[in-house]
Amino acid sequence: MDGYIGVFDSGVGGLTVVKEIIQILPYEDVVYLGDTARVPYGTKSPETVSRFSLQCLKFLSNYPLKVVVVACNTVSSTSLDVLKDNTDVPIIDVIKPGASSAVMSTRTGKIAVIGTKATISSMAYVRAIHNIDNSITVYQKACPLFVPIVEEGLQDDEIALIVARRYLNYLLDKDIDTVVLGCTHYPLLKGVIRKVFSNDVQLIDSAYQTSIAVSEKLNEMSALRNVSREKPEHLFYVTDIPNDFQRVATNFLGWDYVYVKKVNIDEE
Amino acid sequence: MDGYIGVFDSGVGGLTVVKEIIQILPYEDVVYLGDTARVPYGTKSPETVSRFSLQCLKFLSNYPLKVVVVACNTVSSTSLDVLKDNTDVPIIDVIKPGASSAVMSTRTGKIAVIGTKATISSMAYVRAIHNIDNSITVYQKACPLFVPIVEEGLQDDEIALIVARRYLNYLLDKDIDTVVLGCTHYPLLKGVIRKVFSNDVQLIDSAYQTSIAVSEKLNEMSALRNVSREKPEHLFYVTDIPNDFQRVATNFLGWDYVYVKKVNIDEE
Repeated sequence: MDGYIGVFDSGVGGLTVVKEIIQILPYEDVVYLGDTARVPYGTKSPETVSRFSLQCLKFLSNYPLKVVVVACNTVSSTSLDVLKDNTDVPIIDVIKPGASSAVMSTRTGKIAVIGTKATISSMAYVRAIHNIDNSITVYQKACPLFVPIVEEGLQDDEIALIVARRYLNYLLDKDIDTVVLGCTHYPLLKGVIRKVFSNDVQLIDSAYQTSIAVSEKLNEMSALRNVSREKPEHLFYVTDIPNDFQRVATNFLGWDYVYVKKVNIDEE
Repeated sequence: MDGYIGVFDSGVGGLTVVKEIIQILPYEDVVYLGDTARVPYGTKSPETVSRFSLQCLKFLSNYPLKVVVVACNTVSSTSLDVLKDNTDVPIIDVIKPGASSAVMSTRTGKIAVIGTKATISSMAYVRAIHNIDNSITVYQKACPLFVPIVEEGLQDDEIALIVARRYLNYLLDKDIDTVVLGCTHYPLLKGVIRKVFSNDVQLIDSAYQTSIAVSEKLNEMSALRNVSREKPEHLFYVTDIPNDFQRVATNFLGWDYVYVKKVNIDEE
């Protein structure tokens, strides 16, 4: 079936999800929007995040969408209902796939969730995990400096390790065996987070699980493309072109060139 | 003369300027706008910062303005011309007062300027300093983690000191005797910055100098209020109410209560 997989995020982090989608669904057209003019979302109020998210959805709706992927934990945590009220297109969020993956992983029944302030205060992961298994103990910790550290490319710096120790220390004696990286930026800090926890701890990155959820949804809708194509469309939009997006995207996706176009989504 | 002093900033930082203005001009009406929904500005492109700034100016123009104070170094560095093209109200920026204050302070003729990426790349401080004295050597350093550290209230934490050392180390052997805090957030990091530099180094915070510039401009326009009033108006608007703005503002201004109102400025 023709149509796009629409993906949006507050910035560059959602590319972790796009990369997985392109990998398992290589023939599908994808349109991505990163709201880089207003990043970060994780420090803003749910009301403002919802308002921005609706503008993202409205922009993506210029394309014929088969499914919308909310590749941002903050939006998934705070604004899913309002998004669903404003479109008939099925919406895939990143919380449920991450939560179910964590529940499958844990043996001790103790899971930690780390994310932005907005994601943590929303309790969305706690609810999603308890919906699957109410007996699991969930520890949460907001790590607000992680996003700017990644944005500054300091993820392998000593600073990242010191900040990670500060945030995560209190989780170390809790018998946790599974840590949900509840923000699309955090997979880039895996090295550092791994240094803080013991080696047995499983780090859950919802990007892959989310791409599986997209594939399942399209399959269920009989909306998968059934012909291979040489050149599926992969469109990338941002609301601001900061120096780095194109470089980060090109490196991250491992392509020769990523064409990124700037749009205004707040003045329509 | 009736009318307001309009002040805007990307967020809470501009309150350092408001505080000084209220102190030296206690009878004047002030209207403040913090664009907290889209903070930070310092990591965004000049084009986007200009677009946001014009929306801030447009909002403030709902009030009869005597003068507009751009209490944000990033906006002052990137968007002053476009703002001046769009209003007849005199505009005071924070760069020129900071620069002239630094030139007055230096004995060695070596000044360091620290600020956001956007402020540093604009070279605005270098130009402003060289406009006054071309023989001065100016060293610059962008400190992008300083804003999120202050926003997270970590300014007295060990993390702040480690980050400050990392950023400022290369300035230590340059015979610098004056450091311009080229971002309204940075005065809150004075303690930490002071620990990195020797005690003889002068830290220049443009808030006070800017308030003097406002007073001089109003005087020159014969627009100062010449009667004392019991209750001048001090109005505070933000584009998002994050948990903290009201608390930070109340503490910072030392008032019993600061009434803050949320407005949308991008959909008019």
